[in-house]
Amino acid sequence: MMVHLMRRNRLQDWMKREGLDLAIVTHPANVFYLTGFYCNPHERFLGIVVPAKGESTLIVPALEKEAATAKSQMNVDSHSDTEMAADVLHTVIERTYANPQTVGIEKASMSVARYEEISARVGGSYQDIEPALLQMRQCKDETEVSIMRKAAKLADLAVEAAVSAIEVGKTEVEIVQAIEAAIKAHGGERAAFETIVLSGEKSALPHGVPGTRKIASGDIVLVDLGVVVEGYCSDITRTFVVGEASPEQRAIYDTVLQANEAAIAAVKPGIAASEIDRAARDVIARSGYAEYFIHRVGHGLGIDVHEFPSLHGANTTPLVTGMTFTIEPGIYLPGTGGVRIEDDVLVVDGGVEVLTKFPKELMILPA
Amino acid sequence: MMVHLMRRNRLQDWMKREGLDLAIVTHPANVFYLTGFYCNPHERFLGIVVPAKGESTLIVPALEKEAATAKSQMNVDSHSDTEMAADVLHTVIERTYANPQTVGIEKASMSVARYEEISARVGGSYQDIEPALLQMRQCKDETEVSIMRKAAKLADLAVEAAVSAIEVGKTEVEIVQAIEAAIKAHGGERAAFETIVLSGEKSALPHGVPGTRKIASGDIVLVDLGVVVEGYCSDITRTFVVGEASPEQRAIYDTVLQANEAAIAAVKPGIAASEIDRAARDVIARSGYAEYFIHRVGHGLGIDVHEFPSLHGANTTPLVTGMTFTIEPGIYLPGTGGVRIEDDVLVVDGGVEVLTKFPKELMILPA
Repeated sequence: MMVHLMRRNRLQDWMKREGLDLAIVTHPANVFYLTGFYCNPHERFLGIVVPAKGESTLIVPALEKEAATAKSQMNVDSHSDTEMAADVLHTVIERTYANPQTVGIEKASMSVARYEEISARVGGSYQDIEPALLQMRQCKDETEVSIMRKAAKLADLAVEAAVSAIEVGKTEVEIVQAIEAAIKAHGGERAAFETIVLSGEKSALPHGVPGTRKIASGDIVLVDLGVVVEGYCSDITRTFVVGEASPEQRAIYDTVLQANEAAIAAVKPGIAASEIDRAARDVIARSGYAEYFIHRVGHGLGIDVHEFPSLHGANTTPLVTGMTFTIEPGIYLPGTGGVRIEDDVLVVDGGVEVLTKFPKELMILPA
Repeated sequence: MMVHLMRRNRLQDWMKREGLDLAIVTHPANVFYLTGFYCNPHERFLGIVVPAKGESTLIVPALEKEAATAKSQMNVDSHSDTEMAADVLHTVIERTYANPQTVGIEKASMSVARYEEISARVGGSYQDIEPALLQMRQCKDETEVSIMRKAAKLADLAVEAAVSAIEVGKTEVEIVQAIEAAIKAHGGERAAFETIVLSGEKSALPHGVPGTRKIASGDIVLVDLGVVVEGYCSDITRTFVVGEASPEQRAIYDTVLQANEAAIAAVKPGIAASEIDRAARDVIARSGYAEYFIHRVGHGLGIDVHEFPSLHGANTTPLVTGMTFTIEPGIYLPGTGGVRIEDDVLVVDGGVEVLTKFPKELMILPA
């Protein structure tokens, strides 16, 4: 596809500037970004060989060749389970750029074993190209933004399905099931991660696992879900109370909501990522819950559900138009319960567009 | 838990024999195997520091500390998003075994970046311990076997749900939805991988993606699913025909079924993994479809949906009692359709136990 060829061209321009002869890209999300073909190769080899100049080659497991060719419309080479992927890779490299002096690899995702296997056969010095790829990916183009709007819309609809499903006596996994059915019914490819529904004191576990706990009156119910649409993720959290909310539940909810809104209001091009984290953290600290907000305020979102930029207190990277990330402050009181409110946002000229639109005022669901 | 402490002790015994001072284990499946605590840390750090002698320490992201402590009942250290995981790791290593001479890491799953970060601060020579861990994991103990029987049982029930759901006019994703609802309803933790339902000519894509194609009379419908129970996976494929089966459909079905049965019959302790592949491949070759069986006959199964042993033609490893793996021959005719029949098996003294029990004779579903 045209857009993928353009992305490979941008990578090649960058490689020329950096003096790289060859790049070997193997992270499935980066391969998808550069080719339009996505696959999880499990322990098999998947990768693209990109020379600084000229045509790239996609290498896939044999059983993916047909699909890869159709999707990428580029050179595709394949290897069967009995062939050594390293041999095929070596042959492609020989053909593409014999004896490269400088080779780019993704150091954060390539394994030590793969690196030792490749570097034993292909000489040259090895440099990390992963930061450059992640940087390319963090600013979305128009096509990507329009897909991410769709993914966020489906996340809203899935939260709506959760609200309809939540009911005293139902288990957390039953709510998960209703959410995942809604995701499929609305045309989502799949959940972007294991859907989280946590009730009562379990809502204080930020990445707890839904189980057979039955929802009771007075429970907090925290719902964290994401939807993949055309390879891009959304990620939303809403927190509800069933029956009647206690004063403490209201207090932490209001604080988290204010923190969410303060962080969103702070988003604009040029501001440091750390400032967004601080905007939320200040609100929570002023309410006396500082020690119960135990994670960063958000993370980049796109092909991966966690990508650049990371919105934490030590990241001074300035925000740039086209970045998409989550804003998700939370307060977790061990043994009592937790509240998190998460939106997906896009940095636009002069401010922010909030992609997720499900209402955020405290909803008390009937007991 | 006792069983996990015993596993760590076995690893330590092995380390002593190999002359390793320290091991850093970071693959989530290996961490789960050795601690009972599972989490996908995304880009955060998760790992265990195991000295050759003495107590190990589990290092988790701050937000997992409570859950990790409850599950593992061992030393747990944590790091927040603003702390460098490498600093925490370094502190734990200093405390556990200062100045190790030989350090074991998982070379196939540790990234080059992580390796460079650790080896810049912790001297010594680095050896690969992943094969040893995978080898420990490939032979299941009684506890694991009983969990895997449950996971296989749930896979059977999910196939049953698929059979009830398949109907002319329904889309592939609707069948997926019915399967995943059944998985949750029967108490499965989650699908072990993206459930595959492929119909008509799409069934010829061994890892195709379910879409909105509507099932029609005369279609092959291939269903490939897995269920996670208590952290262990099952993986089953059954292939059906809707309405009436053509002679060609019957021919490839019968061949694949015979190949599946021949491979299962060949399983017993002492036989090479490659012989299982050959048993299936010979049947398919004799029927003239050799070139359409484009993948290995199976893969190990356990905490990971793909683990050791790999059942391919070049793997001469002898089978050992306690190994669990899939047997999944297939024939894929591009443009026409494909058939795959997959079971999960356990190597037992003198032979094989088939864990998945859903019937395999050709089922023609009503149009």
